[in-house]
Amino acid sequence: MESCECKCTKECVFVPYLPLNKPEKYASLSKVFKMSKMARLLKDIEPNQRQVYVDSICFEAEARLRDPVWGCVGIIRDLKLQLEILKRELKKKRMALEEIQRSIILRARF
Amino acid sequence: MESCECKCTKECVFVPYLPLNKPEKYASLSKVFKMSKMARLLKDIEPNQRQVYVDSICFEAEARLRDPVWGCVGIIRDLKLQLEILKRELKKKRMALEEIQRSIILRARF
Repeated sequence: MESCECKCTKECVFVPYLPLNKPEKYASLSKVFKMSKMARLLKDIEPNQRQVYVDSICFEAEARLRDPVWGCVGIIRDLKLQLEILKRELKKKRMALEEIQRSIILRARF
Repeated sequence: MESCECKCTKECVFVPYLPLNKPEKYASLSKVFKMSKMARLLKDIEPNQRQVYVDSICFEAEARLRDPVWGCVGIIRDLKLQLEILKRELKKKRMALEEIQRSIILRARF
């Protein structure tokens, strides 16, 4: 593992959200993001949202290191593709059900 | 718009993928990402994948600036939620169709 660029200190604004015994989390973050900006954003975020924020930037950094070309956007692309497939499938099922309902109504009439 | 931190030059590795007349794109990137790392990643990526890479980091940077807490991960969360809703809906439709098929088979027998 590459070492991260800063020395972890107890005063670091990320400590409450990134335990000191998980230096690889901070290392991933600092490999991808501009940490001075990330720290400023953290301070502007409501305290009850800060853990979500840190978890989301860790997820994003890890996705970018795992898949440098697509990163998180690859996950979004795959989910959109899955959504399209499910929407098409759902449309077919709705049409099949409507067709059956029409034929039941027709049969009831004659 | 905040100015970006570097002076754009024709030699910049991002120029072929981020036109000089769109400085706001680079500004968004440089506000979020560590650009030295992003430039190193760019050089390691196959030339035919580099535009995808630059578009994906721009998308990610813009998502983080728009939604500092969740960024791209908020889009992933929403898409997963939509997928769950569609899966449940599809399951209901499948069960309804199976139910109809069973009743048709039963009616044909008696």
